[in-house]
Amino acid sequence: MARVSTRHRTLQIQADGRRRERTEYLAGEQPLEIRVGGRSLAVTMRTPGHDFELAAGFCVSESVVHATDQIAQISYGPGVDEHGQATYNIVDVTLAPGVAPPPASAERSVYTSSSCGICGTSSIEAVTKESAFAALDGDPSQARLSPEVLLTLPDALRAGQSQFERTGGTHAAGVFTAGGELLCLREDVGRHNAVDKIVGWALLADRLPLRSTVLQVSGRASFELVQKAHLAGIEALAAVSAPSTLAVELAQESGMTLIGFSRGDRLTVYAGAERIAPAVRSPGGPGRPGTPGAPE
Amino acid sequence: MARVSTRHRTLQIQADGRRRERTEYLAGEQPLEIRVGGRSLAVTMRTPGHDFELAAGFCVSESVVHATDQIAQISYGPGVDEHGQATYNIVDVTLAPGVAPPPASAERSVYTSSSCGICGTSSIEAVTKESAFAALDGDPSQARLSPEVLLTLPDALRAGQSQFERTGGTHAAGVFTAGGELLCLREDVGRHNAVDKIVGWALLADRLPLRSTVLQVSGRASFELVQKAHLAGIEALAAVSAPSTLAVELAQESGMTLIGFSRGDRLTVYAGAERIAPAVRSPGGPGRPGTPGAPE
Repeated sequence: MARVSTRHRTLQIQADGRRRERTEYLAGEQPLEIRVGGRSLAVTMRTPGHDFELAAGFCVSESVVHATDQIAQISYGPGVDEHGQATYNIVDVTLAPGVAPPPASAERSVYTSSSCGICGTSSIEAVTKESAFAALDGDPSQARLSPEVLLTLPDALRAGQSQFERTGGTHAAGVFTAGGELLCLREDVGRHNAVDKIVGWALLADRLPLRSTVLQVSGRASFELVQKAHLAGIEALAAVSAPSTLAVELAQESGMTLIGFSRGDRLTVYAGAERIAPAVRSPGGPGRPGTPGAPE
Repeated sequence: MARVSTRHRTLQIQADGRRRERTEYLAGEQPLEIRVGGRSLAVTMRTPGHDFELAAGFCVSESVVHATDQIAQISYGPGVDEHGQATYNIVDVTLAPGVAPPPASAERSVYTSSSCGICGTSSIEAVTKESAFAALDGDPSQARLSPEVLLTLPDALRAGQSQFERTGGTHAAGVFTAGGELLCLREDVGRHNAVDKIVGWALLADRLPLRSTVLQVSGRASFELVQKAHLAGIEALAAVSAPSTLAVELAQESGMTLIGFSRGDRLTVYAGAERIAPAVRSPGGPGRPGTPGAPE
């Protein structure tokens, strides 16, 4: 139960007709029920591991907490399988005295509130949650992200993806300093879970808000990922693949920098370009490979 | 509002220091509230388009309906943005007389039922839904899937991914006959939505259960996708990337064939290999490229 990966016997077939049996590793996927004060808040399909971080990060994403001392305790809940073994598929978060529990309508409220009719209004407002942290002011003197550093992050992330290396089935998220130092990396079959685990790590380490950091993710940038980064006070989200319309809109409205198609040799800035350090160009003209200011 | 894709001005930075402004297409992402009989069932972040199919397919995935005549009507609900324009972000499904509405606890019940405590029991049973269609018997004489045909499906899917071509931000799902004929292809920022749109298309076209078909998806195979395929009566799911543990377990338990890492030159069978046509080998020995029985 609750394994990060398991081995499985497969049949591999090649185009030339060859067939062979092979043992492959599968990325673990198990439901995790997240309870707050004993009440079920959500069930997510996740890769087992770092479950307390996942639960804590989910609580941040749901705007239930934003500081370490708002959580009194996190523990596994009851639950055994048909063999009497603990499933470790329930995590219960006990809030500190005085911290308001999530409203009953918050079940799966990342998107859903059963009676709010959010889709009948301007969608971006309805699905946007207010961050507990001060708004990003976008002052370009405060934080400068170097393209040279940003271009190293996908490879740095990939180098830490041990589960992906083994299974090919996990997404990853890593939070880096503006200088490119890796602070925390998490993998999960769900990309939103990988980000929640990062945010939960930061909450439990009393590191929220994650100012002056870049969150690099292995896949695409959806609205949900921008929202989670925003609620954790992260200033820049960089994705290896494409962002969506709503991801870009939310990044713009919340003052975040959003980067997509970050592939090591190039990247595309979709929002918050003022946070990117300006190009240093030689008198010889812009854009020539090997000119000063474009270190290899 | 509700565009499939939109244009956005970006800044592209290359590793050699070159920078240029470029207009890129972004994949549309908007919330869609799915109501059944006026009551909110779920909100999903989706790419606008084929919304009625998405709502219908979601109702199949939630075990609310399984036949065309169980739906009386599907229509857009009310809702305007700040400019008074219709948002087209609410779809209301009216069930036919006598069809039981989903229980109140079914909100987001793909995974979640707030009081069922599913994670305290054997997870595979708790999150598995019963298909309305007869169990797959796995009789190998009934359906044979040719590896040669299966290997053509990723390219056939890719050829139809017009939104991916434009935005790089959408997943795709396509349902094919066992002979490799494309029946329906849908794209969406959410891979579960792409599959729901396929299933909804089949429901509205009175083609459920989708027996003797293969569902080819552009990404990985999660538990959720196997479950949706199972509930639509699909016999084989093929993914370009990896399956998860729970996806393989559910495929095995429900008698489905599950294929992963289908890349055109090879594929891996994780479950239901009995449905794959056996290799035809020449007396010269197995596995030689170009031998008879291994057509190019």
